[in-house]
Amino acid sequence: MVVHFGGDYNPEQWPEEVWEEDLRLMKRAHVTLVSVGIFSWAKAEPRPGTYEFGWLDRVLDGLAGAGIAVCLATMTASPPPWLSHRHPEILPEGPDGVRRWPGARQHFCPSSPVYRAHAVRLVERVAERYAGHPALALWHVGNEYGCHTRQCFCDGCAAAFRDWLRARYGTVAALNDAWSTAFWSQAYGDFAEVLPPRTAPTFPNPAQQLDYLRFADDALRGCYLAEKEVLTRLSPGVPVTTNLMPDHKPVDAFAWAADVDRMALDFYQDPYVPDDHIRAAYNFDLMRSARGGQPWLLLEQAPGAVNWRPRNGPKPPGAMRLWSWQAVAQGADSVLFFQWRQSRGGAEKFHSAMLPHGGTDTRVFREVAELGRELAHVPEIAGTRSRAEVALLADWDSRRALELDSRPSTALHHPELALAHYRPLFEAGVACDIVPPDRDLSGYRLVVVPHLYLLTAQNAERLTAYVRDGGHLLVSFFSGIVDACDRVHPGRYPAPLREVLGLTVEEFWPLDAGAALRVRGGLEGTADLWSEVIVPEGAEVVAQFADGDLAGRPAVTRHAYGRGTAWYAGTRLAPETMRALMDDLRTAAGVAPVLPGLPTGVQATVRTGPRTRFLFLLNHTTTPAEVPLPAPMTDALTSTPSGPVYRVSLPGRGVAVLRGE
Amino acid sequence: MVVHFGGDYNPEQWPEEVWEEDLRLMKRAHVTLVSVGIFSWAKAEPRPGTYEFGWLDRVLDGLAGAGIAVCLATMTASPPPWLSHRHPEILPEGPDGVRRWPGARQHFCPSSPVYRAHAVRLVERVAERYAGHPALALWHVGNEYGCHTRQCFCDGCAAAFRDWLRARYGTVAALNDAWSTAFWSQAYGDFAEVLPPRTAPTFPNPAQQLDYLRFADDALRGCYLAEKEVLTRLSPGVPVTTNLMPDHKPVDAFAWAADVDRMALDFYQDPYVPDDHIRAAYNFDLMRSARGGQPWLLLEQAPGAVNWRPRNGPKPPGAMRLWSWQAVAQGADSVLFFQWRQSRGGAEKFHSAMLPHGGTDTRVFREVAELGRELAHVPEIAGTRSRAEVALLADWDSRRALELDSRPSTALHHPELALAHYRPLFEAGVACDIVPPDRDLSGYRLVVVPHLYLLTAQNAERLTAYVRDGGHLLVSFFSGIVDACDRVHPGRYPAPLREVLGLTVEEFWPLDAGAALRVRGGLEGTADLWSEVIVPEGAEVVAQFADGDLAGRPAVTRHAYGRGTAWYAGTRLAPETMRALMDDLRTAAGVAPVLPGLPTGVQATVRTGPRTRFLFLLNHTTTPAEVPLPAPMTDALTSTPSGPVYRVSLPGRGVAVLRGE
Amino acid sequence: MVVHFGGDYNPEQWPEEVWEEDLRLMKRAHVTLVSVGIFSWAKAEPRPGTYEFGWLDRVLDGLAGAGIAVCLATMTASPPPWLSHRHPEILPEGPDGVRRWPGARQHFCPSSPVYRAHAVRLVERVAERYAGHPALALWHVGNEYGCHTRQCFCDGCAAAFRDWLRARYGTVAALNDAWSTAFWSQAYGDFAEVLPPRTAPTFPNPAQQLDYLRFADDALRGCYLAEKEVLTRLSPGVPVTTNLMPDHKPVDAFAWAADVDRMALDFYQDPYVPDDHIRAAYNFDLMRSARGGQPWLLLEQAPGAVNWRPRNGPKPPGAMRLWSWQAVAQGADSVLFFQWRQSRGGAEKFHSAMLPHGGTDTRVFREVAELGRELAHVPEIAGTRSRAEVALLADWDSRRALELDSRPSTALHHPELALAHYRPLFEAGVACDIVPPDRDLSGYRLVVVPHLYLLTAQNAERLTAYVRDGGHLLVSFFSGIVDACDRVHPGRYPAPLREVLGLTVEEFWPLDAGAALRVRGGLEGTADLWSEVIVPEGAEVVAQFADGDLAGRPAVTRHAYGRGTAWYAGTRLAPETMRALMDDLRTAAGVAPVLPGLPTGVQATVRTGPRTRFLFLLNHTTTPAEVPLPAPMTDALTSTPSGPVYRVSLPGRGVAVLRGE
Repeated sequence: MVVHFGGDYNPEQWPEEVWEEDLRLMKRAHVTLVSVGIFSWAKAEPRPGTYEFGWLDRVLDGLAGAGIAVCLATMTASPPPWLSHRHPEILPEGPDGVRRWPGARQHFCPSSPVYRAHAVRLVERVAERYAGHPALALWHVGNEYGCHTRQCFCDGCAAAFRDWLRARYGTVAALNDAWSTAFWSQAYGDFAEVLPPRTAPTFPNPAQQLDYLRFADDALRGCYLAEKEVLTRLSPGVPVTTNLMPDHKPVDAFAWAADVDRMALDFYQDPYVPDDHIRAAYNFDLMRSARGGQPWLLLEQAPGAVNWRPRNGPKPPGAMRLWSWQAVAQGADSVLFFQWRQSRGGAEKFHSAMLPHGGTDTRVFREVAELGRELAHVPEIAGTRSRAEVALLADWDSRRALELDSRPSTALHHPELALAHYRPLFEAGVACDIVPPDRDLSGYRLVVVPHLYLLTAQNAERLTAYVRDGGHLLVSFFSGIVDACDRVHPGRYPAPLREVLGLTVEEFWPLDAGAALRVRGGLEGTADLWSEVIVPEGAEVVAQFADGDLAGRPAVTRHAYGRGTAWYAGTRLAPETMRALMDDLRTAAGVAPVLPGLPTGVQATVRTGPRTRFLFLLNHTTTPAEVPLPAPMTDALTSTPSGPVYRVSLPGRGVAVLRGE
Repeated sequence: MVVHFGGDYNPEQWPEEVWEEDLRLMKRAHVTLVSVGIFSWAKAEPRPGTYEFGWLDRVLDGLAGAGIAVCLATMTASPPPWLSHRHPEILPEGPDGVRRWPGARQHFCPSSPVYRAHAVRLVERVAERYAGHPALALWHVGNEYGCHTRQCFCDGCAAAFRDWLRARYGTVAALNDAWSTAFWSQAYGDFAEVLPPRTAPTFPNPAQQLDYLRFADDALRGCYLAEKEVLTRLSPGVPVTTNLMPDHKPVDAFAWAADVDRMALDFYQDPYVPDDHIRAAYNFDLMRSARGGQPWLLLEQAPGAVNWRPRNGPKPPGAMRLWSWQAVAQGADSVLFFQWRQSRGGAEKFHSAMLPHGGTDTRVFREVAELGRELAHVPEIAGTRSRAEVALLADWDSRRALELDSRPSTALHHPELALAHYRPLFEAGVACDIVPPDRDLSGYRLVVVPHLYLLTAQNAERLTAYVRDGGHLLVSFFSGIVDACDRVHPGRYPAPLREVLGLTVEEFWPLDAGAALRVRGGLEGTADLWSEVIVPEGAEVVAQFADGDLAGRPAVTRHAYGRGTAWYAGTRLAPETMRALMDDLRTAAGVAPVLPGLPTGVQATVRTGPRTRFLFLLNHTTTPAEVPLPAPMTDALTSTPSGPVYRVSLPGRGVAVLRGE
Repeated sequence: MVVHFGGDYNPEQWPEEVWEEDLRLMKRAHVTLVSVGIFSWAKAEPRPGTYEFGWLDRVLDGLAGAGIAVCLATMTASPPPWLSHRHPEILPEGPDGVRRWPGARQHFCPSSPVYRAHAVRLVERVAERYAGHPALALWHVGNEYGCHTRQCFCDGCAAAFRDWLRARYGTVAALNDAWSTAFWSQAYGDFAEVLPPRTAPTFPNPAQQLDYLRFADDALRGCYLAEKEVLTRLSPGVPVTTNLMPDHKPVDAFAWAADVDRMALDFYQDPYVPDDHIRAAYNFDLMRSARGGQPWLLLEQAPGAVNWRPRNGPKPPGAMRLWSWQAVAQGADSVLFFQWRQSRGGAEKFHSAMLPHGGTDTRVFREVAELGRELAHVPEIAGTRSRAEVALLADWDSRRALELDSRPSTALHHPELALAHYRPLFEAGVACDIVPPDRDLSGYRLVVVPHLYLLTAQNAERLTAYVRDGGHLLVSFFSGIVDACDRVHPGRYPAPLREVLGLTVEEFWPLDAGAALRVRGGLEGTADLWSEVIVPEGAEVVAQFADGDLAGRPAVTRHAYGRGTAWYAGTRLAPETMRALMDDLRTAAGVAPVLPGLPTGVQATVRTGPRTRFLFLLNHTTTPAEVPLPAPMTDALTSTPSGPVYRVSLPGRGVAVLRGE
């Protein structure tokens, strides 16, 4: 076991004489794992049915010889020109019927049987040939599913969508009911009449839109599963995964978790976004939680700048190391980059690489090699696990429904709202899992629901039972409003949560852009974005609105229910106000931080193995910080054995990994 | 006669067991009129040529039994899925050829013969069945024509446009002349060559664009008239209308006025737009004026929040009542809402309804029921009329031409410019009619022309004659510039108005964004947006530009002409400067406010019947106001008879209705 | 010889009785040259193959009779309706497949053989008829090529692009190499698979995009050349040109220069853009430099306002004269306007004209006629030439590559960066040529490279040799990065310039929007947009970054190389900082201004003929300025002979033309 280090390796971009240098420099950088072949379809199958694997044999043999493991791609992420030339029907179409043409990548309709057949045929050849290769460690299916082509609206998709609906609803009557088609004269007489939600004169049916988002995700997953079936069949025992993307609405990571052997993520922190490491932390926790705490793989990050933002800031000295260790601290068992050697041409030639255009005598290569050395120094981290007392709930269905049009406010975005709740936990040094609402919650002291606009009665009952049995729950506004078909739950808002929250919401009162409110009472501060008319039905008022149309009415409530307590926030609290609320909740729930007395801006996490406990300290500020340890530990990163450490001095962007029992 | 109260009633969204509760609660809310069937096509004709009216019989019978009248829709606003499935050619297309697909509503090409044939066939069945129904009070054709599908550019429309042009111009030579096709090598050899103004490399021919706007309006009206013909034939005597929209460029309300039996409007005030009640007032006055003062119908408004703006603010307490009474005060004989019962699903489930998701124990339902009670208390208001001494001219042709591309400034928008002139009249408490330029103006003391960029020589002569005969006229800049074909009138600007205004404009001088000018002289203040080089030819200078390139040149002029006076403003005066000018004009013209000494923010209007005179006082502020009455009146809203009132105390958002002789 | 004065003359827009007045007023305005027939296709060929030239005979005979020369257009800029009606395949398509329909102008696909055949057929008739006409002075091919239709993506273009690629690369292997298709699985098996860079899921291949920009330019030039071939054949000896546009990415003025007999430009200064005359100056210098100093033609400008900007400011008094003389001062041998008589209808009726809607008694006509008189007074200016000691390099290939997507920063725009370097030279009164990088540079004391992102090794060697041989060179950041195929030059950045600059750039560090840095050392000031890690390899540091991530590192360097010196700026210096740097460079290079002691805002240029030297003084401010002359000259604009002038007083926006030996 080892925390893997490496990156995407695209030798087909270079003459073979370069490959030897690649191996030499990979060893110098302590590379242990590379992803190969992600965009090799055109090279491996240059003409339909003609395969050329000799070059790849030499690449993999070389890597095996150097002791470097391979995450081998199925090569299907970017169909070769001959395929779309012969079968233009595989090209995806937008809601306006505009075709997405080749010239970039991911130009395939996920429902296309022609694309799938060609992909599967290729994967069979690849799996046959390399199933037993000594370098093979992991299969990498496709690449960043849904990154560019999130939904296709072509006639082929329309037909596949109808099949999907038939399977889901059985009858047209059930479909009409689920989609509320009595509204706006939309009742279908036959499945044949149903279409994707293409460009329409105004808001298309929201349930149709929601189902199309689900269908499109399933279509992507169908592509993945068709390839996985081949791999499982021809290469049994080798784990299969695919690299997911963060905050990625098209792909439900919780749903896909069941179908991958390892969760795997590509994450690109933006150096020019303040506190982007908190967004990273949220996504890392989600990866770790998705498969019940199993370590996950960071399959891609940038060693320095990317090239696809408007202005691509480089990672300042130390930042790449810090953010890499952050992934490990939050459960990653690999630190991989896009890509090994910076391309000379093509659309990502200005994306930084482990080995830059400037070669080895560069800051980037030096930092890369040093990080490789460090990671190789603590192989025992691999496989260790973390544990959290707090769960934050997230749900793709709910996010997709929330972000449709025709809502009370179009300013509600899941990632923002979720981070607003996650941030005070992160800053308090509290470990947190990110889980779906159907997960067993009994092990958590505190459950936070930033919003679950869409919440089934069944899941609402799970939350209710959780509190009844002694749990502490925080629910924020506009939760529990609709069922799985985006139909408002009968009964007053939020019908399925009224009992546990001890209140009803009589009226939504979304705030105008730029408007803010004060809250006062047991909590003092400000809020914006949303307010609402809360009528307590057992809940006590924690804070009230202090001004605006709802002055004097409840803003935050608390409800003793069963053996537990349920809080409710009917507005978006400003960061510092949310922090104060979360502090109260943690106290009430008895949630402890990983380390008491943590300086501001320092992240602390723990990973525990059978014999060893690792404490990670990460200084996300640019100024030094002192961290006292409750008990002496040893420094795991120094190459010479150190004595017991009672106190850690972290420079700006500094990292410490401490070993304890 | 009664001022009707009610809303859209969509029972097809609910199981029949709910209908009984509907009737019961409608009575409780004093509902007298509901619009039924607006989106019932798919329910009434679930398969081509198969009609199911049993459910509607039960609905209408129930309403009749409860004494509630019905505004029965022709059901053609949203074609059912089977129609567009079998006839995709009915779907409209954008200027870029992108089809507008089903899934929302209004997905029909207004020129489509297939759509019209199916619509007419349905209307025949509906009219046959319900012509004699006791509940039937009014026919509601289509719904919000041109709301989403304003223009279609499909080949069918191209053919219809060619027919329309043949009828309008007769010969290709006349078309070429009208469209100035000698410019840019656009001369047509045959009508067959003419197309809609689809996406072009740059500005399409402006006369072609203008005619296409006229044609598209006529196509919508053609849909309306085809249905109206059926209703008039099969259901003689029952009035026919359709709900227009405010500030709505696609539909010329003055032109449609001749074809409806009652003007009817949907108006949705935005609680987050300051002074949106002034926009409402402008549109209400237009409705009242369009058919010569005949009371009009408010067919839709929201009881609370809507759901189609980015952030949908609710109406704060009292606002819904205030704005409803505002409509009545300005001539409405009905106060209807969208919709009776809030939908559980579909694209408008978060649009407020008379009966909210939260049921009857809600602020919204209480305010609704109370308003219903109030309106029922003063049935004599219905049918009464108002009278104005001021006319503000508006013209769809001119607006459409003004807002085309390739003008001196793209910052000239009709609704803004019109409101800038209307606002000081409204705030001064002056009654105002909004009329087209071909209306008889002899009864007005003052005529205001915010702009009539397009003005025929004939209508210019009407304005000239109006002043010659003693009228007072204010014309603002960029009026009288082009003829009906968007061709500049020969002679110096503004050629057809030079005589009455006593000036010529040598050069337009549009101001840059953010630029402002001072004016001084007989009027002191600021201006922006536009300036121009005015050369007096008999007019005297009221104010000059005080700075900028045109410092010292005339900004506002006055011309004694015949027995009247014509003012001219060559710039956009700031609100307070415009108010000062308008005060001078009113004094000169002898225009009196409805009530002297009206507090700021209080609106006063009068409606007069054969025996009774109603004075409406509406406090649009949130602070109390005192209004002294010139003569004692009685309070029409108190349930117990009150004595004579000499002075009215209005709370914030308060309403008073006073009765006099 | 004369400096021509006149404009576009479109008599087909007017009845023939107006033509006589046109001739009379042209004489009054001292018009000597008019462009005729630019949009006359539909008039001259009203039906396919039927030609009507009688009207044009009368126009040209009239002009000849009045002694006015004609720049006769080939009439092909806007195909007539019958052509696109019969051949809709000539209509261009966007990258999304949306067709550009007729109704405006330039609605032809530049690759369309049908369009070209019809155009050539027409040009043959025109040339046959008018080759010997006494009025004919110049041929005007097409109009503003690429103004609206910059690229077409239709299937016809796809086929033409494939031919173009075959000719350029010969083999598919060479294409794959040039386009770096190993990246993202884009290797082509056959030319038949290649497509234009249509709408794709994400960034299309940058080399494909770059080649498509080149191809599209060649296609436009192909249209031009097909017509020119006819003219050269049928009308030998008459010069041929076409009106280019400023800052115009679609058309490479340096490449086209070889194919026109005179460079010709349309330039529309924006009165509402501060210092837009500097952008004009840059473009005028480029026109003059493109054909080695040959005088060029200003074929279009506006007498006053245009009508195609959002807010169209008029030219204040004196501005039209000033900016017209500016063109002459920078080498123009003509001052022409769009258009002679202002249109009554069509898309440009609010574009000012020499003869406005208001007629002759207008400021615009008076200023026009006065300028005509002035120009006629100094005919000897025509044919004189200027000379510059400074060259600023520009390159269409480089600009096109720089402005593609997927770069380190999308905020780098060629026109802005070029002007930032040009401005301090202009303001210092230094004459400057704008030349491509393959021009002989040996005659210049200073060469400025604002950026040449794309720079071939050959051209880099030319720059290196220029310095080696004693030249002074300034190169700004992100130059010398890629080859002609947008592939990064091997070796550290900027590989082909490392030797001459004496440095390498280890890492790009683009700055975030709004971020700024201070620089200090031999240069003090601020910078923004970009920074980078410069590692000197012989260069000395002129200034360092004073703050930010790169504080203390070099920002500006200087390298003594051979007999010359090369400066490098690794950031965008603020205007005043750039000015200070440029002052140092000029001193070092021994570059003198045209006139010492020039007041701020006054431009001075010299044009020299065989016997006479003209000094032009242009006061671009609105306040008076005094300019002392080093030696006495005579005033060339006074109608009565003046004595020697030692000192010139310029009013605001004043112009002086002085004659010396």
